[in-house]
This record gives sequence, C-alpha cells and structure tokens, in this order.
Amino acid sequence: MKNEYRVQVHWGDCDPADIVYYPNYFIWIDKATHALMGAHGLAQAALESRFGIHWFPIADASSRFLRPSSHGDEFTIRSRVESWTEKRFTIVHLGVRDEAVLFEGRETRFFGGPHPGDPARLRVLPVPDEILAIFGKPD
Amino acid sequence: MKNEYRVQVHWGDCDPADIVYYPNYFIWIDKATHALMGAHGLAQAALESRFGIHWFPIADASSRFLRPSSHGDEFTIRSRVESWTEKRFTIVHLGVRDEAVLFEGRETRFFGGPHPGDPARLRVLPVPDEILAIFGKPD
Amino acid sequence: MKNEYRVQVHWGDCDPADIVYYPNYFIWIDKATHALMGAHGLAQAALESRFGIHWFPIADASSRFLRPSSHGDEFTIRSRVESWTEKRFTIVHLGVRDEAVLFEGRETRFFGGPHPGDPARLRVLPVPDEILAIFGKPD
Amino acid sequence: MKNEYRVQVHWGDCDPADIVYYPNYFIWIDKATHALMGAHGLAQAALESRFGIHWFPIADASSRFLRPSSHGDEFTIRSRVESWTEKRFTIVHLGVRDEAVLFEGRETRFFGGPHPGDPARLRVLPVPDEILAIFGKPD
Repeated sequence: MKNEYRVQVHWGDCDPADIVYYPNYFIWIDKATHALMGAHGLAQAALESRFGIHWFPIADASSRFLRPSSHGDEFTIRSRVESWTEKRFTIVHLGVRDEAVLFEGRETRFFGGPHPGDPARLRVLPVPDEILAIFGKPD
Repeated sequence: MKNEYRVQVHWGDCDPADIVYYPNYFIWIDKATHALMGAHGLAQAALESRFGIHWFPIADASSRFLRPSSHGDEFTIRSRVESWTEKRFTIVHLGVRDEAVLFEGRETRFFGGPHPGDPARLRVLPVPDEILAIFGKPD
Repeated sequence: MKNEYRVQVHWGDCDPADIVYYPNYFIWIDKATHALMGAHGLAQAALESRFGIHWFPIADASSRFLRPSSHGDEFTIRSRVESWTEKRFTIVHLGVRDEAVLFEGRETRFFGGPHPGDPARLRVLPVPDEILAIFGKPD
Repeated sequence: MKNEYRVQVHWGDCDPADIVYYPNYFIWIDKATHALMGAHGLAQAALESRFGIHWFPIADASSRFLRPSSHGDEFTIRSRVESWTEKRFTIVHLGVRDEAVLFEGRETRFFGGPHPGDPARLRVLPVPDEILAIFGKPD
C-alpha cells in the first residue's frame, strides 16, 4: 500500500531563514496519509460507510530532517504502510527530491468510531481484516 | 463591548522576508474575537447553553495593513463590536504597538444554530436582545 | 492576466463545525496570487532578476464568504488583476464550485525592493511598464 | 534548564472531530522551545550577538499523543533540555493538564551560523561551553 504525494513549498511555508517551518512538514505528512488512504479506497467517507470508522487519530508522529527546503522547491512524499498490530498501523513517509531523501517521517495511527454508550467519546476499533488485506504484507 | 488581546509574533509566524505572513493576522483577529466574546460572558459554551447559538460564522473579513511586524515583536489587538443589524454584527480590530496602528481589521459575523429539520445544516439566528444589551450602543 | 488555482479542502483545514477555518481562505488566496504571478512569468525569482522586485507585500486583504466548504470538498480560485494605480495593484479571487461562487476575495499589493541606504528596509517600487503590459487592460 | 509554556486550545486549532489537529502540537512545542531559550537568556537576538548563532534548526522531532484536547481546553508544556552531544541537544516537552500527561514531545536541534565562505549557507556550530553551563547537568 503505497502512494506518492506532491508538495510545492510556498513562500508562507518558510520562516525568516527561508527554511520550511518544521510543523508544516507534519501537515504535508498528514495530507500524504489522507492521500494514501484515498488512493486505496479508504477515504474517510468510505471508511465510515464500510467499516464504521469515523477517524484515524494519531498516536505517535516523528520525523528526521536531513536536508532543508526553501520557497519554490518541490518534492515528493513517498508513503506506505510499514507495519501494524491488532489496533495500530504505522505509515512511513519519505520526502524525496532528485532521489535525495529530505526527511523521513513516521505516523502511528489507529481507527476509531463513536462509543456506543456515548457518541461524543471515541472507541478504538481493531483494524478490519479487509483493510489488512489492502495494507498487504509488511516490509 | 471591548477587549484587548495580546500577540507575540513568533519565528514561525514570519515569512522569508521576516514579515508576518498575512493570513496569520486573521488567525489572531479570530482569536481576538473569541477573547472579546469570552470576556463578556459570551464564550461558546455559554452561547450554546443560554441562547442555542452553536457557532458565529464569518460573513466578511478584511484588514488594512499599515506597518509590518517581525519575529520577536509584540502588539495588542483592541477589539470592539462596532455595529450590527438584526442578523449580523461587525467587530473592528486595531493592532497597536506603542500607540502606532499596525493594522485595522474588520469581521462581520452572524449567529447560527442547528436547523430544526436537519441538525447538520445551519440556521441563522437573530441577535438576541440580551446580547444586544451586552453589545451596548454602536459608535 | 488570469489564472485558475485548484484547492482541495483537507480535514485539518476545517474547524469543529466541519467548516473551513476562515484564515485558511487567505492562505489559498495568497497561493493563488503566487500561482497567478508565476503563470505570467512573474515568479519571485523572475521579479528579482528582471525588475529588482524582492517582495510583493499586502496592503489590504478582504473576503466575503457566501457558501461554506467542508473537508473533502474541492473548488477553483479564479484570480485576475482587477485594477492598479502607480504603486498598487488589486487582485480579485473568486472561489467557485459547480459555477456557484463560494467566496470573493481581494488583495491589494505593492512591489518592494531593498532600500538603497539600508538593505533591511523596504522601498516601494512603482509598477514597471513591462508588468503593466502583462496586467493588460483593467476591467 | 526548564520552563513552562501555557497553551489555550482555540476553535481553529481543532479538526472536525473537535480534536487538536496534530501538527499544531509541533507549533506549540516549537514555541515552547523558543520560550525555554528566552527564559534563560538565549533568545535569538542574544544567541546572535553573544555566540554568532543565527538559528537553531531541527534535526528530529517526535511526539507521543496520550490524551486528546478540544477547543476551550488549556494545558501547560513543561520543557527542559534533556541531553546533548557536541553538536546537538534534545529538548523534552511534556504537555500536562491536571497532572495528566497529554503528550510527550522531543526535539533534537543544533546551532547554526552563516558559513564564512557563503553567508547563504549554514555552518553547524558546536554547543558553546557557556551554553552547556546554562543547560546544566543532563538527567
């Protein structure tokens, strides 16, 4: 389960050193996850209608930053589901420009739905078998 | 109905010219409106419990930018309700540092609650008399 | 001088009412301006090398919001230079989905370069004739 | 070397599930680092004038998210320098509300100054002894 997500670094994404302000990388990583899910039939609307999954919240997020980017730069985020447990899955995101790795991010997420007793609360859901089949084999 | 909201300009708020990236002014203006409402007993929880108002969406937002700010700067936003009609109200926001006006923003907003026939839709609500009394006299 | 800029409304762009948090519209409007300039040979690098223009700061920004958008929505921003004076130019941005206008934004900007006496300060530059020729006739 | 940084969770910080959109945690963590540095005489202006340090870029950022926050919530970020090597230092950030840990973030940063041969390039600087003395003993 892989996808590529294209990023254009905008003037407003950069700080006074003309380097990307680092929280923006996590916005792009999050968008890359949504794109990865959507590209495999797991957009939010589909998750909800098919599996009762309303959200896929974050449990852990990290990134190593290897090379900076400045306004006007472009790069690709190569995202794939790297591993999973019964209730969590990890997505790795490689930021790549001209085959150089710019950053390596990871997100661990889980699936959630409304709690039966209190719709305002979240209930963690196991990863459905059908989604495991889409994830494919781990690395 | 007035309030002052204090802003510290952060490194990440500024662009490569070390000038505030202008959409951030609207984030601060929005926060200043929430602070203004909250300072007068009209925080979101109170609006909902007392008046059935769930949201106060934006109809119009604008700002003139007179003097730039850079990272490390601080300023105050002086906010007040400037005028209103039956269903809308306008808040003016003056960004001020050392008595110099940095920007002059305006927001026109309205009150909304869930539509009786479809809770996912918004119904525009007239400004309640009790809130008009809090707004006070227009300028 | 016209351009179209495509926007996908992302989960993180929306507030708890699942409505776009309005300052994000100004981020998209700003990006649409950069796209408009770039599409006509006026990207930042070209402005600097050809005209000594380093920045095009904002003097005034506004938007009327007519129809809300939610996560998963897409729309197009139709941008064009609407008018100009010797030292300022105004860009109008129409957010459009299925021919319905979602918002109508305006930005007034000016061109700036480093001040000869102090490179940290900005000097306002008149709009060069060559750029006026690219702007074309006003509406 | 410790500091506390106070955060108010704003309407626009939250996503349609009324949960903080997670990249915003990294904005607050970054601000908490600036506040930590500033509280110990290491604000950016002081770093530059005393040590020739112009930036403290990020090499690695991560956070575990243990409990969500919603609009209207407040919490404190307890930040401290946890460890360092010759050229890098790690700051740990605990998000705390009512003694419950909400998140545990870490940043590894380094100090940089303009490269003598090319001011547009960054040169990594060793952590000065005087700053090591401020960091104090590692945990």
